[in-house]
Amino acid sequence: MAPDRPSLRRRLFVQLSPRQWPAEGMSPANKMIGLLILFSVGVATLESEITIYAGNEGIFRTLELLLGGIFLAEYLTRIWVAPEADPDGPAWRARLRFIVSPAGILDLLALSPLLLEDLGPQAFLLRFARMLRILRFARLGQFSGAFAFLQEALASRRHELVLGVCVAGGLLVLSATLLYVVEGDAQPEAFGSIPRSMWWAIATLTTVGYGDVAPITWFGRVCAGFIAVLGIGLIAIPTGILAAAFSDAAQQQRIRKEAARKAHGHHHGEPHQ
Amino acid sequence: MAPDRPSLRRRLFVQLSPRQWPAEGMSPANKMIGLLILFSVGVATLESEITIYAGNEGIFRTLELLLGGIFLAEYLTRIWVAPEADPDGPAWRARLRFIVSPAGILDLLALSPLLLEDLGPQAFLLRFARMLRILRFARLGQFSGAFAFLQEALASRRHELVLGVCVAGGLLVLSATLLYVVEGDAQPEAFGSIPRSMWWAIATLTTVGYGDVAPITWFGRVCAGFIAVLGIGLIAIPTGILAAAFSDAAQQQRIRKEAARKAHGHHHGEPHQ
Amino acid sequence: MAPDRPSLRRRLFVQLSPRQWPAEGMSPANKMIGLLILFSVGVATLESEITIYAGNEGIFRTLELLLGGIFLAEYLTRIWVAPEADPDGPAWRARLRFIVSPAGILDLLALSPLLLEDLGPQAFLLRFARMLRILRFARLGQFSGAFAFLQEALASRRHELVLGVCVAGGLLVLSATLLYVVEGDAQPEAFGSIPRSMWWAIATLTTVGYGDVAPITWFGRVCAGFIAVLGIGLIAIPTGILAAAFSDAAQQQRIRKEAARKAHGHHHGEPHQ
Amino acid sequence: MAPDRPSLRRRLFVQLSPRQWPAEGMSPANKMIGLLILFSVGVATLESEITIYAGNEGIFRTLELLLGGIFLAEYLTRIWVAPEADPDGPAWRARLRFIVSPAGILDLLALSPLLLEDLGPQAFLLRFARMLRILRFARLGQFSGAFAFLQEALASRRHELVLGVCVAGGLLVLSATLLYVVEGDAQPEAFGSIPRSMWWAIATLTTVGYGDVAPITWFGRVCAGFIAVLGIGLIAIPTGILAAAFSDAAQQQRIRKEAARKAHGHHHGEPHQ
Repeated sequence: MAPDRPSLRRRLFVQLSPRQWPAEGMSPANKMIGLLILFSVGVATLESEITIYAGNEGIFRTLELLLGGIFLAEYLTRIWVAPEADPDGPAWRARLRFIVSPAGILDLLALSPLLLEDLGPQAFLLRFARMLRILRFARLGQFSGAFAFLQEALASRRHELVLGVCVAGGLLVLSATLLYVVEGDAQPEAFGSIPRSMWWAIATLTTVGYGDVAPITWFGRVCAGFIAVLGIGLIAIPTGILAAAFSDAAQQQRIRKEAARKAHGHHHGEPHQ
Repeated sequence: MAPDRPSLRRRLFVQLSPRQWPAEGMSPANKMIGLLILFSVGVATLESEITIYAGNEGIFRTLELLLGGIFLAEYLTRIWVAPEADPDGPAWRARLRFIVSPAGILDLLALSPLLLEDLGPQAFLLRFARMLRILRFARLGQFSGAFAFLQEALASRRHELVLGVCVAGGLLVLSATLLYVVEGDAQPEAFGSIPRSMWWAIATLTTVGYGDVAPITWFGRVCAGFIAVLGIGLIAIPTGILAAAFSDAAQQQRIRKEAARKAHGHHHGEPHQ
Repeated sequence: MAPDRPSLRRRLFVQLSPRQWPAEGMSPANKMIGLLILFSVGVATLESEITIYAGNEGIFRTLELLLGGIFLAEYLTRIWVAPEADPDGPAWRARLRFIVSPAGILDLLALSPLLLEDLGPQAFLLRFARMLRILRFARLGQFSGAFAFLQEALASRRHELVLGVCVAGGLLVLSATLLYVVEGDAQPEAFGSIPRSMWWAIATLTTVGYGDVAPITWFGRVCAGFIAVLGIGLIAIPTGILAAAFSDAAQQQRIRKEAARKAHGHHHGEPHQ
Repeated sequence: MAPDRPSLRRRLFVQLSPRQWPAEGMSPANKMIGLLILFSVGVATLESEITIYAGNEGIFRTLELLLGGIFLAEYLTRIWVAPEADPDGPAWRARLRFIVSPAGILDLLALSPLLLEDLGPQAFLLRFARMLRILRFARLGQFSGAFAFLQEALASRRHELVLGVCVAGGLLVLSATLLYVVEGDAQPEAFGSIPRSMWWAIATLTTVGYGDVAPITWFGRVCAGFIAVLGIGLIAIPTGILAAAFSDAAQQQRIRKEAARKAHGHHHGEPHQ
């Protein structure tokens, strides 16, 4: 409809900003970046396993530089096109705003391993650099409209969820304290202080139950039994809240879509189901 | 009502195709095949246990051949009656379509152990052949109308479930990476790479908690505690989605049945409950 | 309102039959029997622990005979008053009907330890007799109106629950078979046959995760990881069904109570909440 | 609006009583006390760990006395302002009523460690005193309006929850008895009595599954498998009840807020979302 063809910067901006993309789904550029992120996470995961890395150092090094280069180019492009978001202000301000935005900082953090590479064979730094590369994974969330649905469902129950977390935290501290009192003498290594008891309390209240620590005295087991039953409630409370939240969010989405379809004036011939 | 009696092929087709069967429930032929499948799965299960198999080789061999023969006959009959599904096209095309359909391939796969039997005493092949026999189990799903209800409930929440799986996958990768960074030095065998850490991350996030691997350092345990609490959310999200899906699907089914009963014009005298 | 006082047999019948009792809650006789059952279960539980039993044989023997005598008297009374349920038929038929009813058989089974007591110091028989005494516990279900609510909620979702159990059973067999194929060579003791694998499969799919058996090979762990994630679904399906069932049953109960209150003509002045 | 400035006692009373505070949220005084409670719980937690306590005895001793002094002052102030709750009665009666109220007793209990401090280096008493300090945590519940929401949601399903606990208790006793009968001979240490079996039964039915005790006989494992599957139901029942309760409570709260907003006569211009 527009008689003039938009500039390259404008077209790149529309491609890279999920909210600017007019059609449903993701833009071709973001689809490709998404796939590259998944591929890069897979490479970083396999690279960490020495039995896979050994003998393939060259391949992994090449892939790292290649992927790092692409993501660096993407980052620089995003800085270049940033002024399109605010065409009236000065370009440098829009660019600075992108660089210090959470998305921009996340991008930079995920790029930093490229620079850390040459710090020598310090095991911890290497592992940390790999973790930063895997942080790219979190960038995927920005691209998806479905993620917004999840956020909305969680946000609508903010208060209840915070309350659930507080109740869970209180239960955790009180359970750990109780076992510290009754079991601390018998197993000082595992229950000799409240922070130590907490490892057991978390494993029990979440029903993970590793079994590396467990009460051995009679009274400790009776207390642990009551706490384990309360652990069911701990699961039941957030489950109940989230179940209701998702049910409501999905229903509202359906109502909104139905309303949009009616407002559009004609049914698209899709089966009613 | 039809003045002519339908042909044998037609009658067999109606018996064997769950959707063609006019009455409620399963046809007599499918009921018998269903029971034979259950029996055959039971036989294959017991046969795999050497303490039961030893001394009863003859019985198991006979049962295998007998059941294999019946299922072979069923498979050939299904090929023979296939043209009834498309009476106007050529018979060979309908038959080929059945053979290459998922149901037809599943049938053939479950029959193949009959041929693999003589491959000698190679342990892995024998186990694989038994697994194929147990695949028959999956055929039961085709016979049941209730299975369609389950499918419908899941399909109606396709998007939310895919989203839940993606969030769970992301949480899994990030949890494994975190523990790899903080616990990798202390336990290189269990946390020395991201794929290794993932075994721990799955056991924790699903709350299975085998306990064969668990963090032992202070900081590792603090991180693991946070991840275990997030594991509750991992369970809560699909549970919430499925709870809402089943609730809605069951309600719609009731509304549909109610509508069908009213359309029928008279109440069948069943108690209102 | 009745001018004649009902007979002793009639009054006992009304006291002992939960459905005959006109007021809300349980009748005094059933309340006392319920408490005696709880007490008797507690006695049988403590008696099984040798460190508690040793030195207190006399007390336990006396309590057993006393409680056994009371429950025997209750059983005989129930036989005596049975004809009140069907005043027009012959008395012996109503009594026989009670004796062969599930409730009557359960009563008799729970009494039988009184006779088994003198079978000598055979450990298994003694344990079995104690279990029969604890079966009395199941009798409590008959007394409670709330139990009927639970039954109703479960019955209304009969089909979905049966379906959920079938899906769970299928998943169990297929999981056990898969691990038997991929892990059988590495750990023949734990995964060397499908029944053996099932112990692991149950512990994983229910997320109990004892950790006494767990895959140790790479491929086994990858398969086990997928199965553990499916285990979440296994929990989510019945949870979703039951959540919806309870929600609906509770709502219907409220509607029914509301309707009953309105039909009564006046509000009982209770706060609206 | 009031022409006279209220007395100091009145103003303190309004600050300290969550229900008297006219604005939304907590009063400044209660906010500060809440933070001090959290800080004091953190101090008591860290102090119990000998590796942190050793060398910092002075700091912990000072913090203890300081926090104890503040909470003592708060307690005395609450006693002093208590008559404001009942201005017409005699002052001593209102004060006594506060001292013997649950909140007053909890306050006193949490203060008592100050006096127990000098009882010498008896390990158990020291641990018990620390537990009392952590009991302060429970006081936080009184300050929060959200806690009332949780209480209301649970109270509305009182009957179902009690029923769920009873079913769970029955299942627990019957499971423990069953395993005691079938596994008692093979593992007398872990299953040799019903109370011993109960430790296993709790770990299984709650799906915690420590793995310190697990059946090893064939028949014991078959029984344990059935019980573990029932454990899913044990989780599903309270989860279902709580999910419905929270869903309803949240909906009613929204309806109430909506009604309050309409009654207020004008919309506050907040986005409809």
